[in-house]
Amino acid sequence: MSKNRPLILVTNDDGINAPGIRTLIEVMNTLGDVCVVAPDSPQSGMGHAITINDALYCNGIKVINGDPHREFSCSGTPVDCVKIAVNEILKRKPDLCVSGINHGSNSSINVIYSGTMSAAVEAGTLGIPSIGFSLLDYSLEADFSPSKKFVKSIAQQVLKNELPKGVVLNVNIPKLIASEIKGIKVCRQANAHWEEKFDKRTNPLGRDYYWLTGEFVNEDKGEDTDEWALHNGFVSVVPVQFDLTAHHAIKELNTWDL
Amino acid sequence: MSKNRPLILVTNDDGINAPGIRTLIEVMNTLGDVCVVAPDSPQSGMGHAITINDALYCNGIKVINGDPHREFSCSGTPVDCVKIAVNEILKRKPDLCVSGINHGSNSSINVIYSGTMSAAVEAGTLGIPSIGFSLLDYSLEADFSPSKKFVKSIAQQVLKNELPKGVVLNVNIPKLIASEIKGIKVCRQANAHWEEKFDKRTNPLGRDYYWLTGEFVNEDKGEDTDEWALHNGFVSVVPVQFDLTAHHAIKELNTWDL
Repeated sequence: MSKNRPLILVTNDDGINAPGIRTLIEVMNTLGDVCVVAPDSPQSGMGHAITINDALYCNGIKVINGDPHREFSCSGTPVDCVKIAVNEILKRKPDLCVSGINHGSNSSINVIYSGTMSAAVEAGTLGIPSIGFSLLDYSLEADFSPSKKFVKSIAQQVLKNELPKGVVLNVNIPKLIASEIKGIKVCRQANAHWEEKFDKRTNPLGRDYYWLTGEFVNEDKGEDTDEWALHNGFVSVVPVQFDLTAHHAIKELNTWDL
Repeated sequence: MSKNRPLILVTNDDGINAPGIRTLIEVMNTLGDVCVVAPDSPQSGMGHAITINDALYCNGIKVINGDPHREFSCSGTPVDCVKIAVNEILKRKPDLCVSGINHGSNSSINVIYSGTMSAAVEAGTLGIPSIGFSLLDYSLEADFSPSKKFVKSIAQQVLKNELPKGVVLNVNIPKLIASEIKGIKVCRQANAHWEEKFDKRTNPLGRDYYWLTGEFVNEDKGEDTDEWALHNGFVSVVPVQFDLTAHHAIKELNTWDL
């Protein structure tokens, strides 16, 4: 590896064979020395899960198309991948960690369920500049090509500028052709939630079971949110922090009779 | 159920048979009408994971000691438990959701890995006043009795006062006898992280595998943090928010050439 090229760790939550991570690897190969450590199977909705009661496997994979990067497939969650990459696989702390490109939205409240973003956040806790990327298209045939230009420019900016301490980026890209994307907007997370509808069924043995389905409800009309940006043709960039303290609430709680 | 008594949802991440949730149920039975929906097996470290590629089972359990509450055992994660409780089991939105008492610390950065806190946060996103409780004792023989008084008084305060919008409480209790606990402190999350050490082994088939082990590193010397409070004999209460936006970083990112 070159001394002057940045060292870039690539991971995701859809698994190492997902089309989204292939696009991300392709773009990162133009920016630095790339090492991929990603789950061996899909891990969507895993949030910030870690593997503590099970052994982890992590195997090098032969890169068949002759690309210069290294690849490792890991039996754990996205967060496990970052931990094992940084502590066992890489010789030094990477200059950048990118996660994705996720198949589907990680905007607004989705950030808390997202394995893609949890990998980025985990890298952030280790002091690594970090970005999670998502494309608002769940299809396995999603076209990731319009995303490339934005992925590249945002990664370049993070490599060039210093991210504020304790901050990682949550980038969502609308499902549009390249000419329809209006640009990039820095946003806040929209105030939204999921209203669940459970699909109740009975199995052949007579036991009830449920499938989780839900409806996304956005009650936030602000024009400075990620939801607004995405609906209006912009790529949204939300700075995300892992200090979850609601600092504004401390004063109020101190008036309680605790 | 009485009309005047609050409806309280109890869950956890250590599983429905863990000693910690038994203590929590006992205390909540003195405060309101209790419904327990908890994982059928331990779910530690599950973060905000949800079950989207699998069916969920959720079964009523006979409460054998004659307590007045209802209990349901669920095959999913702590977050799944909250979703299914609110949408399928309870007739109305609960007045309070309590999660725990977790076996082990959820202070500082542990909040992002914690299934206990994710259940509380999930309830928060649904507009339910919510608290996660943890005792700093990993032992299955941990003594939860000194916790009872603090669990009760904090729950009473949340029922009486209104939590600020978008805020849930992360309560950690030091491993001390009752007379040594100095009181309750409202705190911010300490700035800390985990430094992992992977224990690498070889299985009988010659394949390498890893066990995740780690060391908690607290670089935050502030006396207003949860770590300080716990080390100095106080119960820590951190107001936690699920708007992860680093609002202070938006202005700086807007100076970038995005």
